[in-house]
Amino acid sequence: MTEPDIESRVRASFGKQRFMATIGATIERVAPGEVDIALAFDEAVTQQHGFVHAGALATVADSACGYAALSMMPGDAAVMSVEFKINMLAPAEGPRLVARGRVVRSGRTLTVCRADVFSVKPDGEKLVATMQGTMMAVRGRGGD
Amino acid sequence: MTEPDIESRVRASFGKQRFMATIGATIERVAPGEVDIALAFDEAVTQQHGFVHAGALATVADSACGYAALSMMPGDAAVMSVEFKINMLAPAEGPRLVARGRVVRSGRTLTVCRADVFSVKPDGEKLVATMQGTMMAVRGRGGD
Amino acid sequence: MTEPDIESRVRASFGKQRFMATIGATIERVAPGEVDIALAFDEAVTQQHGFVHAGALATVADSACGYAALSMMPGDAAVMSVEFKINMLAPAEGPRLVARGRVVRSGRTLTVCRADVFSVKPDGEKLVATMQGTMMAVRGRGGD
Amino acid sequence: MTEPDIESRVRASFGKQRFMATIGATIERVAPGEVDIALAFDEAVTQQHGFVHAGALATVADSACGYAALSMMPGDAAVMSVEFKINMLAPAEGPRLVARGRVVRSGRTLTVCRADVFSVKPDGEKLVATMQGTMMAVRGRGGD
Repeated sequence: MTEPDIESRVRASFGKQRFMATIGATIERVAPGEVDIALAFDEAVTQQHGFVHAGALATVADSACGYAALSMMPGDAAVMSVEFKINMLAPAEGPRLVARGRVVRSGRTLTVCRADVFSVKPDGEKLVATMQGTMMAVRGRGGD
Repeated sequence: MTEPDIESRVRASFGKQRFMATIGATIERVAPGEVDIALAFDEAVTQQHGFVHAGALATVADSACGYAALSMMPGDAAVMSVEFKINMLAPAEGPRLVARGRVVRSGRTLTVCRADVFSVKPDGEKLVATMQGTMMAVRGRGGD
Repeated sequence: MTEPDIESRVRASFGKQRFMATIGATIERVAPGEVDIALAFDEAVTQQHGFVHAGALATVADSACGYAALSMMPGDAAVMSVEFKINMLAPAEGPRLVARGRVVRSGRTLTVCRADVFSVKPDGEKLVATMQGTMMAVRGRGGD
Repeated sequence: MTEPDIESRVRASFGKQRFMATIGATIERVAPGEVDIALAFDEAVTQQHGFVHAGALATVADSACGYAALSMMPGDAAVMSVEFKINMLAPAEGPRLVARGRVVRSGRTLTVCRADVFSVKPDGEKLVATMQGTMMAVRGRGGD
């Protein structure tokens, strides 16, 4: 696939992930093996101390990993999350977060990815969470 | 703490997790070292194939683990998620999911938990995801 | 396969894992979806404080998971570890440890397992580590 | 601590990890937040297909993470592995492997690390496994 085709494919599938719209996440960047997803800080995604919920961090990191993996899969493959592990490193504050998903190793069936989640403030970025996960190419479901 | 106190404490903190209301999660059961959280199936939490997003599964499993841990912490401790790992085992469908968080080992600083997420249908339950994670007791923030 | 065939298959493959002999691990029990591996305490597997090294715990837990998975795979499949996550719960002391691997979900390609590692003393058992991992069936290498 | 002091401290503690000698692992490099551990290929650390056992990869990666963490801890702290997760990416062959442990975030109590394990051949390096883990500083045991 060409890079524009890859980007179209990823954005089309992302558009079907209703959970992304629910939490206010958007795709920021797509390149082969690399997908960045942004999340605007909103009280709707917070935990009891007012920071972004670990589950919301996991959600954007998982989608960033999944789409980074999909960006390197053949056109007839769909992507599914096998598993992931995430460490929370600092309280996740606003105004904006970005999850940067990267392919570590792309295989025929399994793709291993990493995602770093940053809190982006006017004065710089801070790493707030980091994920390592395994994605799977599934054939015969239509490609997304 | 008495069991009713533990339940009040967990429900009060859960009530402050705005993300739980956003995704439609509710506490189903609280006991020492055990918390069950229910999630009604809704398109708002789905991924591109129409199943519940892995991030939403992680969210309810993480809260179930966190509150199972908090249920065994002293009154002046708040709980934070250090890290978790989740495996997705089957497509997560409705009409209802439940995450059952259980303490595996409770320590002064760290508590290790497990959560199983089931899809609950009229004809029975199916395990759709399983989490192993580490929670931390933090002092000096007020207890929740 | 019959149960005796499963046990023979697992024991034959285990016998080829030279690392098991190096650390002094032995198979204690094989049943469909369940394999227990014992490790005698020895200074040769310790870390700097005199307890069993986390890597040695991971080794027996990984083999217990892998062989629990293999015990449910068709005869032409070999097993490989995709990934695992382990929490250390207490200092691992002797005189003997046992890792109990159990299949959580068995699929055509991937099998998710759990293993609990216990320190076994005359006066009882203590859970010292717990693993959650993903094993893969690989065809075309001969079955083990 | 000065860099030479850090290196002495790490090497002294490593020297007490009897399991490192058992598998033939050696420290290759120490810098603040960075420790590399080498493992010579030997049949004694193999699994049933003749590759290095996932448990041996986990062992060197865990020690690389643990000592990278220790290299940034105050002198009165000892290091313990809380948990780690490792993905196997390719069959681990010889003649030599190296695990490069790096601190991702260093905290008062918990330190999050990553380790990449490479197979090193005359014609280049290949990434064979990658770990993400959590290390803990423990006071009151003597510092190592």
